[in-house]
Amino acid sequence: MSTIKSDASFSLLTGNTIATIPFKGGSIIFREGDEARELFVIRSGHVRIQIGNRTITELGVDSIFGEMALIDSEPRSATAIALTDAELVPVSEKQFLFLVSETPYFALKVMRVLAQRLRATNKTFG
Amino acid sequence: MSTIKSDASFSLLTGNTIATIPFKGGSIIFREGDEARELFVIRSGHVRIQIGNRTITELGVDSIFGEMALIDSEPRSATAIALTDAELVPVSEKQFLFLVSETPYFALKVMRVLAQRLRATNKTFG
Repeated sequence: MSTIKSDASFSLLTGNTIATIPFKGGSIIFREGDEARELFVIRSGHVRIQIGNRTITELGVDSIFGEMALIDSEPRSATAIALTDAELVPVSEKQFLFLVSETPYFALKVMRVLAQRLRATNKTFG
Repeated sequence: MSTIKSDASFSLLTGNTIATIPFKGGSIIFREGDEARELFVIRSGHVRIQIGNRTITELGVDSIFGEMALIDSEPRSATAIALTDAELVPVSEKQFLFLVSETPYFALKVMRVLAQRLRATNKTFG
């Protein structure tokens, strides 16, 4: 479950005009139960997603995370921790809805991320 | 995990012009590992989704299932069984892609279904 995955197709979001947020290695990006305002695209570094002490996945450059809470308006379902120094591009709910409505390919990519996580979870516990 | 859920917002797909497929109670709609050609909207009846002998969810009228395999082009991740006599509306990959591109609301609804299933799975095993 701890391979570092990358997905270059989210790089469309990480143009140089969008400000990145720097996180130090070991710092917490958000905690399970937090209110959510954005998803993140990883521009550099690695991020671990965990629920309690269980690692769900580790993600690399151009992956997204934090999309769940934007989709269903629930609190964060997991905790995200910067494994290394990392630069993240925040995508607000408004930007997210714009991308979904303007770029069907983006919507499909987000669905694929969710489907992959669901399959991975089912395999782990199946 | 075995509440019967309904989601009326998929009823936009179940207009009377689309042919339904009838399934007898107890019959298998598709099996884990099958090649996938469509997702289904439940027009009447109840459907159980299971992996091996583990029930993932039970779904009622206007819910969708079978969307995972369309999204990631992998074989069916679970088995679907008609719990009662059921009428299902098949939605082909082509129709699915059309709906995603033409109706962002549909894309968001599918994302919500996936997010709900992921949260439910995480809760069960967290």
